[in-house]
Amino acid sequence: MKRIYLDNSATSFPKAPHLAEKLRDYVLNDDGAVNRTYSEASIKNLEMIAELRVKLCRFYNGPSDECVIFTHTITEALNTLINGYFSKGDHIIISPYEHNAVLRALTLHEIEYSPLPLCENNRVDTASAESLIRKNTKAIICTAVSNVNGSIVDLKALGETASKHSLKFIVDTAQASPYIDIDMKRDNITALAFTAHKGFMSIEGSGGFIIQKGEEKNIRVLIAGGSGSDSGNPYMPEMLPDKFEAGTFSTPSLFSFSYSLDYVLSHLDEIRKKSKENTEYLKQALMRIKGIKVVESGNEEDIIPLISVTSEKDLSLIALSLSEKCGAEVRVGIHCSPLAHKALGTYPEGTLRFSPSCFTAKEELDEVINALKEIAG
Amino acid sequence: MKRIYLDNSATSFPKAPHLAEKLRDYVLNDDGAVNRTYSEASIKNLEMIAELRVKLCRFYNGPSDECVIFTHTITEALNTLINGYFSKGDHIIISPYEHNAVLRALTLHEIEYSPLPLCENNRVDTASAESLIRKNTKAIICTAVSNVNGSIVDLKALGETASKHSLKFIVDTAQASPYIDIDMKRDNITALAFTAHKGFMSIEGSGGFIIQKGEEKNIRVLIAGGSGSDSGNPYMPEMLPDKFEAGTFSTPSLFSFSYSLDYVLSHLDEIRKKSKENTEYLKQALMRIKGIKVVESGNEEDIIPLISVTSEKDLSLIALSLSEKCGAEVRVGIHCSPLAHKALGTYPEGTLRFSPSCFTAKEELDEVINALKEIAG
Repeated sequence: MKRIYLDNSATSFPKAPHLAEKLRDYVLNDDGAVNRTYSEASIKNLEMIAELRVKLCRFYNGPSDECVIFTHTITEALNTLINGYFSKGDHIIISPYEHNAVLRALTLHEIEYSPLPLCENNRVDTASAESLIRKNTKAIICTAVSNVNGSIVDLKALGETASKHSLKFIVDTAQASPYIDIDMKRDNITALAFTAHKGFMSIEGSGGFIIQKGEEKNIRVLIAGGSGSDSGNPYMPEMLPDKFEAGTFSTPSLFSFSYSLDYVLSHLDEIRKKSKENTEYLKQALMRIKGIKVVESGNEEDIIPLISVTSEKDLSLIALSLSEKCGAEVRVGIHCSPLAHKALGTYPEGTLRFSPSCFTAKEELDEVINALKEIAG
Repeated sequence: MKRIYLDNSATSFPKAPHLAEKLRDYVLNDDGAVNRTYSEASIKNLEMIAELRVKLCRFYNGPSDECVIFTHTITEALNTLINGYFSKGDHIIISPYEHNAVLRALTLHEIEYSPLPLCENNRVDTASAESLIRKNTKAIICTAVSNVNGSIVDLKALGETASKHSLKFIVDTAQASPYIDIDMKRDNITALAFTAHKGFMSIEGSGGFIIQKGEEKNIRVLIAGGSGSDSGNPYMPEMLPDKFEAGTFSTPSLFSFSYSLDYVLSHLDEIRKKSKENTEYLKQALMRIKGIKVVESGNEEDIIPLISVTSEKDLSLIALSLSEKCGAEVRVGIHCSPLAHKALGTYPEGTLRFSPSCFTAKEELDEVINALKEIAG
């Protein structure tokens, strides 16, 4: 059956154009270990990864390319930061839109947290941050964009509060990139976590984080192992990026990320424009469907291609019908973000989420909209 | 330049035949998130991963398929086990051949360890294990095969000691599979870590571990996050495999692993036979080269395709010359295994390691041998 894929917030599909063929060629000819084998291929791979650091550093206005650290998932990146910075008894201010990658990591380490409230149109009330600060507050952790309703959080406001009170400011960009500009310097971000396989259209298997210079001294290692450097040292080397990069890189994932990031950055305006058009079109249509209610994001413009809806009918049954009728692939439930649904009043049923990409055709959206009219009406 | 790739102990190259094309097709048509999207593709991917668990469980004679847990690297798997089972002040018996994935993880968590000594021909003296047991000894952690000289460790002997004294027995199979049979039941193995990208000829980006039933209760979570299941639970779900699988799977890596594992298992005799022939041939030739000394493995047969040599000349310069003369790709140094080199008397210079695969042609080995004769002589 054909796929009308509308779950790009979970993982992108299709990937960047021609990525699959490039990946085949890479696996056939150029794959190899980095910092291990003595070879031209190994050096070429090391250079590819070094250039990827430079590109990401520039995109997020990070401090320096060695401050860009690769992990295999953004979940691993967020866990590294949370385990690395904080201890039992610390207190953190979070947005109510945090994903379980943050919530469960905080719970695991017995770190207290206070979520900011929502204000008009489901926007995060960043002005409340100051009132939540306690003696043991160490940081503000915030997703830049909700994975439930696409709501954009005012990072600049939170960054100013964090900076004023000497708190770390940690930002999750999973749903935000490449749709909005995030600037580590402008927004006073201490550490930023990113992923390759969502808006950057790469295959699954790479993510990472960027930290301000010197921050590595404050971050304990989560995963220790071979770094291919300073191997007689019983600890991970202190130097960046090695300190946080134990084990063999997924070179095919990083190659894929490098390729797709080049594609995205060289087509950024077009991708943002098309994504916005799709989001506006879909949202307007959804708002007109009887029996369907769009969850407000509070965004001034529909630049995040992610819309959640509720219905009186069973959402799983709607998703099943959509799948059967037109091959639509959506995501139903609480999207690993229980706090968000509690704040939005959609817990425990959750919502039905549509996340198109810039490649989704109007005709595909029409098919889904028409099918939904029949199902939900 | 052509590649004569002899670093399969770091990562395999080439990968399993036709893997690159299959991976291209998968990325083009079938990729998707598991336990997230509501779709046929998602279910198909879930089934693919479930079948992979079954195959691995059978290969290692594990207890049950849900006890097979995927991580992104074997380093992450070993860190999950070490962080999960042990605490500061615990004592562990290890082999002297442990990789930094074990050594550095033990150091990170301030866990004491005692390495077993070597006996004749660099074999691990497993009979000494009992004498190293202290009151606070919790486990024996052991690689099944050394990544420095290919020495095979007698797992059965260590498993018996562990079982007799109620110690956990944790085995690293990175260099051992698929060349030797490892049987979790026969060898009394509590937990076994595996990787996809070495002897199993998959791309980098998958590994994991298998535990005996009920062991999950003794293992703390290392990485918490979205499991796509029981998402309102502030902790990772207790059920397996979900408890240890936070974040988005690298579905392309797992697809690749599934494909290559099928290839390896259906060609196992042939792969082992060809690998042994290559190892014997290379070893005999190396032993005849003046100025080169083969590091003994103590193995009865040359079934592990991994040979280290030393020389009076600078090993890095030899590797450079080999690379320039015939495109040979080898690995020089201490291979992230400082203890092994200390035990072998090759620290800190390390060794020059050759690790061919079953696909390495005799002619390629001849080219490298001839080049080495000129360089080392």
